[in-house]
Amino acid sequence: MTDTPTTSIAVRVYYEDTDAGGIVYYANYLKYAERGRTELLRSLGFENKALMESSNLLFVVRHLEADYMSGAKLDDLLDIHTSVVEIRNASFTMYQTVSRSGEILFTLRVKLACINTDGRPVRAPDNLKTALAQAAYEEGK
Amino acid sequence: MTDTPTTSIAVRVYYEDTDAGGIVYYANYLKYAERGRTELLRSLGFENKALMESSNLLFVVRHLEADYMSGAKLDDLLDIHTSVVEIRNASFTMYQTVSRSGEILFTLRVKLACINTDGRPVRAPDNLKTALAQAAYEEGK
Amino acid sequence: MTDTPTTSIAVRVYYEDTDAGGIVYYANYLKYAERGRTELLRSLGFENKALMESSNLLFVVRHLEADYMSGAKLDDLLDIHTSVVEIRNASFTMYQTVSRSGEILFTLRVKLACINTDGRPVRAPDNLKTALAQAAYEEGK
Amino acid sequence: MTDTPTTSIAVRVYYEDTDAGGIVYYANYLKYAERGRTELLRSLGFENKALMESSNLLFVVRHLEADYMSGAKLDDLLDIHTSVVEIRNASFTMYQTVSRSGEILFTLRVKLACINTDGRPVRAPDNLKTALAQAAYEEGK
Repeated sequence: MTDTPTTSIAVRVYYEDTDAGGIVYYANYLKYAERGRTELLRSLGFENKALMESSNLLFVVRHLEADYMSGAKLDDLLDIHTSVVEIRNASFTMYQTVSRSGEILFTLRVKLACINTDGRPVRAPDNLKTALAQAAYEEGK
Repeated sequence: MTDTPTTSIAVRVYYEDTDAGGIVYYANYLKYAERGRTELLRSLGFENKALMESSNLLFVVRHLEADYMSGAKLDDLLDIHTSVVEIRNASFTMYQTVSRSGEILFTLRVKLACINTDGRPVRAPDNLKTALAQAAYEEGK
Repeated sequence: MTDTPTTSIAVRVYYEDTDAGGIVYYANYLKYAERGRTELLRSLGFENKALMESSNLLFVVRHLEADYMSGAKLDDLLDIHTSVVEIRNASFTMYQTVSRSGEILFTLRVKLACINTDGRPVRAPDNLKTALAQAAYEEGK
Repeated sequence: MTDTPTTSIAVRVYYEDTDAGGIVYYANYLKYAERGRTELLRSLGFENKALMESSNLLFVVRHLEADYMSGAKLDDLLDIHTSVVEIRNASFTMYQTVSRSGEILFTLRVKLACINTDGRPVRAPDNLKTALAQAAYEEGK
């Protein structure tokens, strides 16, 4: 209908991501997820550095729930899928999956809050909320 | 009563832990938590490398829920507290907090499963379950 | 002339890469560099996991010299360039740069040795040496 | 003679530090080294955050040379030793080793420059230079 925001990114697993157990270290899925959220925002016209420098705005994670089904391995090519689940005045929630060849390895539900550079909660800018709502709407189709 | 396992470790925040937002990067709390769990196991006589090499045993995270209250900063001295919440045949659940001068910054509830080095679920060794139960018991006092 | 191996990759800077100084943490350039070397090998038909699993072969860094000219920042799009400088029986040397819009931010000269999974030095496979020599030759043109 | 600054710290190897090769990932030795430098400065009365916030001062790495002799493994207890090698007006050089039970696994020679929070080179504060010179002097005995 309109331009749909890109919500999937491809991520390659490198040595830096793995641990001595031979699989991706559990904390590193959160890095992949943050890359996915960043690219969703970028596809909507919002860059983290610009938000911080021009609007004194940052997003911080407040809550997350993660399930680990199966371990990604060295050289795997992963798909990080990000969708907007809920939009509030000063926070929003995203649902993300990490999958390999269609098999879901990891799911994440993450709530982010908007804060200013002094660390105080602030309302999200209207244009960001509108853009995310559009993303959520397009996602639902 | 008996020797209580050490369940608190001190962690210093270094540049490597922080991000351009000026606080500890959200995934790095999971690193702190894993250090805490590792030291709990070590205090009970179990080392990750020995478990892997002699018993073909690894622990993998299956599920976690985390709350982020406030951000840790460069040079902060953090306390990572780990307690055993539930012990099952092939998994156990821990509750962990990261705090600074008594203020809780982060909480984590994490469920770990025992797998062998081929990735298959296995029962936890009896001596490990007994030791963890003891830890949970001592913790509850 | 023949197929030239891909020796440049694009890397985006995410929060995970930065530190409280507002720039990419110094150790993380080595992660970028390892991604570049991995992609050079992949472009020549060699994958780390396959080398480890079928040939018991790993590459370990033996020596490196790095210069940091200027700091990469959040949201920067970096170019990681990798070229083969020297090929020996059991080791090879690569020269790598990280640049942003043509400005070189970081250079690395890194010597890697071939070891087996027991940690012993071994000769590099002939087909790998041939492929790297080809890469070096193409690079020099 | 006078109080000698503490220049050795103990570091435990956790899963987060290792990679699928079963050893500490090569970039992570630089994290250990930075912890060591930070603790050397702290022992002399200088904290990174305070330097940044009160004096607008940061240290950035300009050049480094590293040798990797042998790989540290999961659960290893490492000793990170840091000494001051050279002190200039706007930079200083440190020599660092990572060892395990007396065996040196890694050495690093690293040159750091003083910059202000705008990224411009600045002279190091006199009290810092005096303290480092003292450290270097004590080290040499």
